[in-house]
Amino acid sequence: MSKSLLEHINCPEDLRKLKPSELPILAKELRRFIIDIVATKEGHLGASLGVVELTIALHYLFKTPEDLLVWDVGHQAYGHKILTQRKDLFHTNRQLGGLSGFPKRSESEYDTFGVGHSSTSISAALGMALASQLKGDQQKQHIAVIGDASIASGMAFEALNHAGVTDANLLVILNDNAIGIDPSVGALKAYLTKVKGDKKLAAQNNIIKALNFNYSGPIDGHNFDELLTELERLKSVKGPKFLHVITTKGKGLKQAEENQVQYHAPGKFDKVSGDVLSVNTDHLPLKYQDVFGKTLVSLAKENKKIVGITPAMLTGSSLKLLFETYPDRAFDVGIAEQHAVTLAAGMATQGLIPFCTIYSTFLQRAYDQVIHDVALQDLPVVFCIDRAGLVGEDGATHHGVFDIAYLRCIPNLIVCAPRNELELRNLMYTAQLGLKHPIAIRYPRGRGVLSAWEQDFEPIAIGTGVQLEKGTKVAVLSLGAIAVNCTKAIEQLKPNHLVGHYDLRFVKPLDENLLHDIFKDYTHIITVEDGAVKGGFGTAILEFANQHAYANTIKILGVPDRFINHGTVQQLQEQVGISADEILKSIQKFL
Amino acid sequence: MSKSLLEHINCPEDLRKLKPSELPILAKELRRFIIDIVATKEGHLGASLGVVELTIALHYLFKTPEDLLVWDVGHQAYGHKILTQRKDLFHTNRQLGGLSGFPKRSESEYDTFGVGHSSTSISAALGMALASQLKGDQQKQHIAVIGDASIASGMAFEALNHAGVTDANLLVILNDNAIGIDPSVGALKAYLTKVKGDKKLAAQNNIIKALNFNYSGPIDGHNFDELLTELERLKSVKGPKFLHVITTKGKGLKQAEENQVQYHAPGKFDKVSGDVLSVNTDHLPLKYQDVFGKTLVSLAKENKKIVGITPAMLTGSSLKLLFETYPDRAFDVGIAEQHAVTLAAGMATQGLIPFCTIYSTFLQRAYDQVIHDVALQDLPVVFCIDRAGLVGEDGATHHGVFDIAYLRCIPNLIVCAPRNELELRNLMYTAQLGLKHPIAIRYPRGRGVLSAWEQDFEPIAIGTGVQLEKGTKVAVLSLGAIAVNCTKAIEQLKPNHLVGHYDLRFVKPLDENLLHDIFKDYTHIITVEDGAVKGGFGTAILEFANQHAYANTIKILGVPDRFINHGTVQQLQEQVGISADEILKSIQKFL
Repeated sequence: MSKSLLEHINCPEDLRKLKPSELPILAKELRRFIIDIVATKEGHLGASLGVVELTIALHYLFKTPEDLLVWDVGHQAYGHKILTQRKDLFHTNRQLGGLSGFPKRSESEYDTFGVGHSSTSISAALGMALASQLKGDQQKQHIAVIGDASIASGMAFEALNHAGVTDANLLVILNDNAIGIDPSVGALKAYLTKVKGDKKLAAQNNIIKALNFNYSGPIDGHNFDELLTELERLKSVKGPKFLHVITTKGKGLKQAEENQVQYHAPGKFDKVSGDVLSVNTDHLPLKYQDVFGKTLVSLAKENKKIVGITPAMLTGSSLKLLFETYPDRAFDVGIAEQHAVTLAAGMATQGLIPFCTIYSTFLQRAYDQVIHDVALQDLPVVFCIDRAGLVGEDGATHHGVFDIAYLRCIPNLIVCAPRNELELRNLMYTAQLGLKHPIAIRYPRGRGVLSAWEQDFEPIAIGTGVQLEKGTKVAVLSLGAIAVNCTKAIEQLKPNHLVGHYDLRFVKPLDENLLHDIFKDYTHIITVEDGAVKGGFGTAILEFANQHAYANTIKILGVPDRFINHGTVQQLQEQVGISADEILKSIQKFL
Repeated sequence: MSKSLLEHINCPEDLRKLKPSELPILAKELRRFIIDIVATKEGHLGASLGVVELTIALHYLFKTPEDLLVWDVGHQAYGHKILTQRKDLFHTNRQLGGLSGFPKRSESEYDTFGVGHSSTSISAALGMALASQLKGDQQKQHIAVIGDASIASGMAFEALNHAGVTDANLLVILNDNAIGIDPSVGALKAYLTKVKGDKKLAAQNNIIKALNFNYSGPIDGHNFDELLTELERLKSVKGPKFLHVITTKGKGLKQAEENQVQYHAPGKFDKVSGDVLSVNTDHLPLKYQDVFGKTLVSLAKENKKIVGITPAMLTGSSLKLLFETYPDRAFDVGIAEQHAVTLAAGMATQGLIPFCTIYSTFLQRAYDQVIHDVALQDLPVVFCIDRAGLVGEDGATHHGVFDIAYLRCIPNLIVCAPRNELELRNLMYTAQLGLKHPIAIRYPRGRGVLSAWEQDFEPIAIGTGVQLEKGTKVAVLSLGAIAVNCTKAIEQLKPNHLVGHYDLRFVKPLDENLLHDIFKDYTHIITVEDGAVKGGFGTAILEFANQHAYANTIKILGVPDRFINHGTVQQLQEQVGISADEILKSIQKFL
């Protein structure tokens, strides 16, 4: 057997030397390459397998990188990375110093726009197309590839609505596989499903056409003949155009096709059988997410006012557990953070207690709604802010490090962070006891620290911190789960009389009584947070100290004022100075 | 002639005693009542005139406040306020302590959801409808009234997309007058215009139907027969339904119908003739908005890379001037802040220099896009943040007071504020000289302070402040245009040797050299900002002082941690302690 085709392909120019008949062979090799590496290195699998043919067809027919290709979200861009000069680096995917798991401008000229959050691609590609138009460049093509879950987000609609009244040379490709991370939801999804089965509807009665796009499709996204013919034809169609492509997420790996949610990012799996390698985690603490999900079910059992809302993270947030128990009280609204928050506000006006669970980084999408619809009206919505702090391998686009700073300035809003699973439960319990204000509870991605996480509920007084260790000279003030690193640091000092440790638990309102005691009892204060230092928890302590004219020395540890790339959480915490070892060093400077 | 009908109507129950045939008479009276008061008290005129019949019909047929009525944005809710127990207070509209210019929950039980920002009504009303469903209430009606400009915003699409797959008892009324504040734009608007003229399209080939709503209309929103018949019918239609109503903004006042942009909020006008009372403003400084608009035109003349983007504030921001001069380089994308920012990012990748002008309070809608699409990629987008600080009569929903806090935590982003029109021009000039980072330039609503605003451009070194007054004991540090209040305060001290005054100009990066000098030369520091104190400019100074172990006394003046209601800017500045008099008091405490 001759050497593989992929072996000789380093960049799209190499690809373009192949005959069309060779492309299906290359597709097979590319799938195998992705599977082999993701099987051991982990990462996002299903989305990239689904667009192998589309990826090859695009780079084959279009003159990338001159022609500008924007991938929405970027989970599906592994094939793109491999075909664009990064085959030999692909084994470093998502590792510290290695390739990013998402397209990234600083990584390659083929990555025309950095992505991670969804639904940005049409806006970005339209901006590029309008720029080309202004520059008089009539050759350049501008292509956005977007999934059916992402296109239902409001931002994508805004972009379509604008593009439709321009004559920009924009091609939007809808990669319709009926699933995002969880199965797609919403009326548009239902409509697209109808379109797939009804050629007449597709041809005539069409939302996309109503928005003034030249619509074509649906075509089979795994069929090179259809793809190449249609893409070639669209090259010379003027103005905004839209190609509806049907694909199967996980295509080419049986298990991934059959279990699309699990194989979105399956962890390690057997590259031959495809089976996920089971790891015994019975001895490990639960994930915070599972504690959230299980606790919400317990609370909802007793309190009929409780409902749950997630913007498209039913599985990731574990709201799924509520959905399975009380399907009419759990709402997956799709990738629609803005709507999720204002929906919660509307429910709260009628006396419901909505637990709105959103990843910290995605809550940025609903910032105005938190201010204008919830906090301004002082409605008791409960924000469960998942994946707060450094999240690890997903990197710069996904770290949840700004929430403390951007929430702390909002009046009426209570902002807190549990130190462990028990506190998460008790804060959730407290939040549904008739609280009169909105509350944001932030907790990290991944496992907690306790084995006995399920104990009787106890209310937590709003705005109270706790003393974990009494000292005399240096007080370590931490917020939430990062306490565990502080504890580890202080443990290395034993016997220790000098260093105290306090978990403030609430960044708003602060426990002023406790803080007065601390500022009187200690000369040196170290604050530790898993978040941006500019405007964050440490800054809140500075504001307190200034207001009360304390002159104690204060050292602030947290995420510095730069974007943090990917790596393990441990590596990144080390890098920014909030690992146990780094905290210890900071303490020792004061001893 | 008998007494007027309106005189006897204090609440909807009174209204419901009228015969249908009397409603047109009431409509006339209500229009006159609105015109008479707005003519002298100022406020939003055109939108409320356009929905007089719709407002009466809704309160006549539905059992408000048990039935829940949500007005989108709220510019159009004057008639609603007058008919719901606030007729006698309406002359206090938008004044300190008076009625809010927008529906507000704390003001009336008829105001079911506070509004101000657009496109929230469908989410809120859907939340209410789902709550009723869960509570087993099958009687309650839930109605969102939304304009054609607002419904094109992404958030509204998200809500429609969700509602379409529920069986919630939700009625969405599209108040289609083809204009927001400026004429509506976008493909959806074009489509709606087509629908109006094509009964077949309306009946069959319909975007709204595709989203699984029961669509009816379009009907004439000034015809009571049509309104009452259709609304009555819809009461018993199950599930999500949509009524398309055609209205004329400014209806009933000739000038307001003919000049819809000007009569959106015309200022004082003659209540008989309808003519706007011309005020001679030749002797006054220009508005910051006009300086922005004129400067952008000058810069764009020389620098072909410059483009301008506004989300639906073409007139208000004065981007209109660029649009009139270079129509292909000015983009009104509609109420689509998210898209506006990412469009700018896309353009910036191709070497354009987008000036993206957004009101401070609306930039909250695009917070994630600023972080994820602009700052993370370090793209040189220029944000011109209009109406920063306390905006006056528009009140709590519109104050632009959080921007310093929420922008300061974003890496790579330069954040600054001009002290006067000249500095605004020079900062804009600097921003297009090949800057390698994104920059946010915040400036207030309303008039500047200079007569000779148009001078030769001079670059401003990034991160430099200026000394305005040298002192020895107390240093006043201000940021941007609020400097004028500080200057007035200090002037009252003359002869003055003790109090210095510095405009930091950049809150990020701070002028550390200048700050070191200040902290060494003065014992007392007072910071003054037109923004929230939690995490804002003063806090940035605290962070600096802490980092460098300065022990100076620091007093922070700015907007406290609560939502600020409406009033004149002067009244509100007094209230929060940043008027000249209040600043003077703070200074004197240190002398």
